Amino acid sequence: MLSTMQDVPLTVSRLLRHGSVVHGDSQVITWTGDAAPERRTFAEIGRRCARLAHALRDELGVRGDQRVGTLMWNNSDHMEAYLAVPSMGAVLHTLNLRLPADQLTWIVNHAADRVLIVNGSLLPLLAPLLPHLPTVEHVVVAGPGDRSVLADARPQVHEYEELLAGRETGFDWPELDEREAAVLCYTSGTTGDPKGVAYSHRSIYLHAMQVNNAEAFAMTVADTMLPVVPMFHVNAWGLPHAAFMAGTTLLMPDRFLQPAPLAEMIEAERPTLAAAVPTIWQGLLAELDARQRDVASLRSVIIGGAACPPSLMRAFWDRHAIRVLHAWGMTETSPLGCIAHPPKGLSEEEEWAYRQTQGRFPASVEARLAGADGTFQPWDGKSTGELEVRGPWIAAAYYGGAAGVPLRPEDKFSPDGWLRTGDVGTITPDGYLTLTDRAKDVIKSGGEWISSVELENHLMAHPEVAEAAVVAVPDEKWGERPLATVVLREGAGVDYAELRAFLAERVARWQLPERWALVPAVPKTSVGKFDKKVIRRQYADGELDVRQLG
Amino acid sequence: MLSTMQDVPLTVSRLLRHGSVVHGDSQVITWTGDAAPERRTFAEIGRRCARLAHALRDELGVRGDQRVGTLMWNNSDHMEAYLAVPSMGAVLHTLNLRLPADQLTWIVNHAADRVLIVNGSLLPLLAPLLPHLPTVEHVVVAGPGDRSVLADARPQVHEYEELLAGRETGFDWPELDEREAAVLCYTSGTTGDPKGVAYSHRSIYLHAMQVNNAEAFAMTVADTMLPVVPMFHVNAWGLPHAAFMAGTTLLMPDRFLQPAPLAEMIEAERPTLAAAVPTIWQGLLAELDARQRDVASLRSVIIGGAACPPSLMRAFWDRHAIRVLHAWGMTETSPLGCIAHPPKGLSEEEEWAYRQTQGRFPASVEARLAGADGTFQPWDGKSTGELEVRGPWIAAAYYGGAAGVPLRPEDKFSPDGWLRTGDVGTITPDGYLTLTDRAKDVIKSGGEWISSVELENHLMAHPEVAEAAVVAVPDEKWGERPLATVVLREGAGVDYAELRAFLAERVARWQLPERWALVPAVPKTSVGKFDKKVIRRQYADGELDVRQLG
Repeated sequence: MLSTMQDVPLTVSRLLRHGSVVHGDSQVITWTGDAAPERRTFAEIGRRCARLAHALRDELGVRGDQRVGTLMWNNSDHMEAYLAVPSMGAVLHTLNLRLPADQLTWIVNHAADRVLIVNGSLLPLLAPLLPHLPTVEHVVVAGPGDRSVLADARPQVHEYEELLAGRETGFDWPELDEREAAVLCYTSGTTGDPKGVAYSHRSIYLHAMQVNNAEAFAMTVADTMLPVVPMFHVNAWGLPHAAFMAGTTLLMPDRFLQPAPLAEMIEAERPTLAAAVPTIWQGLLAELDARQRDVASLRSVIIGGAACPPSLMRAFWDRHAIRVLHAWGMTETSPLGCIAHPPKGLSEEEEWAYRQTQGRFPASVEARLAGADGTFQPWDGKSTGELEVRGPWIAAAYYGGAAGVPLRPEDKFSPDGWLRTGDVGTITPDGYLTLTDRAKDVIKSGGEWISSVELENHLMAHPEVAEAAVVAVPDEKWGERPLATVVLREGAGVDYAELRAFLAERVARWQLPERWALVPAVPKTSVGKFDKKVIRRQYADGELDVRQLG
Repeated sequence: MLSTMQDVPLTVSRLLRHGSVVHGDSQVITWTGDAAPERRTFAEIGRRCARLAHALRDELGVRGDQRVGTLMWNNSDHMEAYLAVPSMGAVLHTLNLRLPADQLTWIVNHAADRVLIVNGSLLPLLAPLLPHLPTVEHVVVAGPGDRSVLADARPQVHEYEELLAGRETGFDWPELDEREAAVLCYTSGTTGDPKGVAYSHRSIYLHAMQVNNAEAFAMTVADTMLPVVPMFHVNAWGLPHAAFMAGTTLLMPDRFLQPAPLAEMIEAERPTLAAAVPTIWQGLLAELDARQRDVASLRSVIIGGAACPPSLMRAFWDRHAIRVLHAWGMTETSPLGCIAHPPKGLSEEEEWAYRQTQGRFPASVEARLAGADGTFQPWDGKSTGELEVRGPWIAAAYYGGAAGVPLRPEDKFSPDGWLRTGDVGTITPDGYLTLTDRAKDVIKSGGEWISSVELENHLMAHPEVAEAAVVAVPDEKWGERPLATVVLREGAGVDYAELRAFLAERVARWQLPERWALVPAVPKTSVGKFDKKVIRRQYADGELDVRQLG
């Protein structure tokens, strides 16, 4: 029996219309450094979105689902592209300005971007790539920055403001299928080519409803949100869309992401909410400790993108009465996977244990743990497995590019369509996730999993140990066993047996490494993470002086 | 370009699964009068839902989209039917126990209910109808009440608890199309046959997300919600579904809807939120004024279903520090149409003006005002029109019954598919709705609309007037003009000219009635509303002694 309800699609244009009409007085404030912040009302942004759409269609000839890339900071021009490009039916492709040149080039070509909107300050980054971007026909430059680097550029160059000037302030936004792509965002995976997630209008809309849920970030018209998380990174966690849904004023940091200007803009514009990765908050905390800053306007800051050190959460609460809200997600999950609001009826101390988990799953995100033996593990807070998730804003595949066929790599998607997150952890009976490891770093020993991170943390707690990295190495009997590589502090005299005894007091016996190697330093990736690939290769090639114990 | 997101349907079974697993400790508490309240955890309800589905399928043979009716109070058995029936793919049909017998009979036959689940206390209401309900094959009786009235009943009679006993506590809920019907609910329209709205899984799910939005009712796991609004009335405003989404404990009043037991259950179970129509709150207020009652647990009460008198809102705030949250909706809008949260930055006094509106539209509800001349009116807070709405939880038609063709009466649905609400009012530039009249009672005079309610309110403010009803009557020159019928207080000596002068000080000259009639009483409907149909007929038949003025 079919329902009798209206078949109204959930689209970005609905957010644009709603925000610019019902919340026309709300603002997007862009920080400009020393000058006065630039303020645009949602109503004004609505009119400029119409102008941008006219310009893209009439002047640059954007049609159908062609891709419009943005290489931009968080600012109100970027907000206009966010709303206008998907609303006209085209696909917004947000480009990560921190990627190496070759990856950026690869991504633009894979997405076949026809237009790039770029901040003037990022032209030195873009200009050298342009000769290698054959699909790009138009470059639109917005905001301050020297244009001369584009002198010899092949694509047509336009000024953003000139392009918008004088055009109509209304646009007949098409009624789109909510399952069509709205935004394309590539993951900067550490292995293989980058992979594109094509968010749908539906997934973006539902995700925005979730962001504004009382159990998530609870954004309202009374709030001002400071998204430090970049708009090129998973839609800035969906906050710009959610803001237009709720009428929440946005405070955009543009390129001023250092602790001092962040503190300054918080003091001046008094946001009630902010969102960023832990390193940003670590920097801000140091700034707040060093100088007297008024950040009392903040009621909650959202931390995601990486696990937040408990000490950081405590410091914000104890020293500044700011609640840190821990959340977990990834590019493939839009990103809201879970949020660490504690359950009710607990003491402040008991709540801390929950605040430090990755969080609780909302109704729209189903979760399961695929264990070492392939069976699904119970939610008992102890059994470990790789987290798999399912839901209306979770990816089912990666964008296939010109070939058109979506990519469904086996290690990323289960046969029944769930996303394999590559994260390993436990779930409590009441749905709180705690991550313990990346799946690729877990040691699969005789049908059980051993967390490399847990062993490392214990080893590094030993006073004589400077660093420790644990990796899986092949073992005839068990499949895999842990190899512990240890960097001793200068002048330390500890031996393997002592380290093993130290570990034995802290983990189960079957988890204790038999293979040990002292190394002068742990090899690291370009961003400073342990490079376990290199350690595994060193072991395979016999480059390590390995001792066998136990 | 298709997105790469998962195609996961938004279904009631998703709410059932989520609530019973992630929020397994939350409760549905049913008030039982003098005995201890009955408590069931969401986990227990999840297991009982599986049992109910097995019983309906295996024992009663419910298949496909067959209808299972409920004639029940707000209680945990009803909650189980709410979740289990749609989750198994059947359609829940909630029956309004306050309807006259002939309408109830008509509705059950139109929906072709195969099973009825009924509370024991309502059997005296149902038993006499059963001979006239040929499609009903099974009656399932739940809760206390004399069963003997069913002795001669034709359909098979079952005990709810016996039916559930011993069955499996898991059920393989089917993956449904989110656009399929989940719940059928008939409006008790004052004219013509009742009309059925078939809510979809999608509309119920999206509506639940909206209910839990920070700008709506903001229900969380820390809340206990008391839905006094019946579960047979527009899904109790979607609160049961939203509760399973958020993990909110529900306090169910069952049949104890009088002020004294309501105050008692609030005192005992300490709900943080409650929802009901104004008359219930009026009664509760009188109870609170008469007796010392502790209702401090309530942070907010939601009033809808009819306009809330401002004095009532003030009284709750001034005398009990309880916020009344005004909301507007109807059966055809699921019902959340708008919610009266004031904008930010206002003084307490300024906020009151906003709190007394019908509320602000959320992103998912588009609105427009169709004016007297058929054109859409500006949102200026002054221009008047009939409210039309559009959105994913707004009806597009009524259920067509066995014939299968949905009904789309012209006065209810515009040619482009918007719902014509039949309500007339204004919208401010920032999207706040104020209703002034029902469309059928508005006087369409020369391309302008005159509010009958406004004229009546002014007339009834005159010290000598007991009651006044204003209706539209045909007029050669203007199309329609107002006729004022007035009931004077005993011994009052006021004349027409004085009343007209009194009105002239309060409304525009062109709105002043030319036709006046003194009447002994205003004719009323069975529920005490002015029966304007009767007045118009009396006028047409020359039964009124009409004086012409001006």
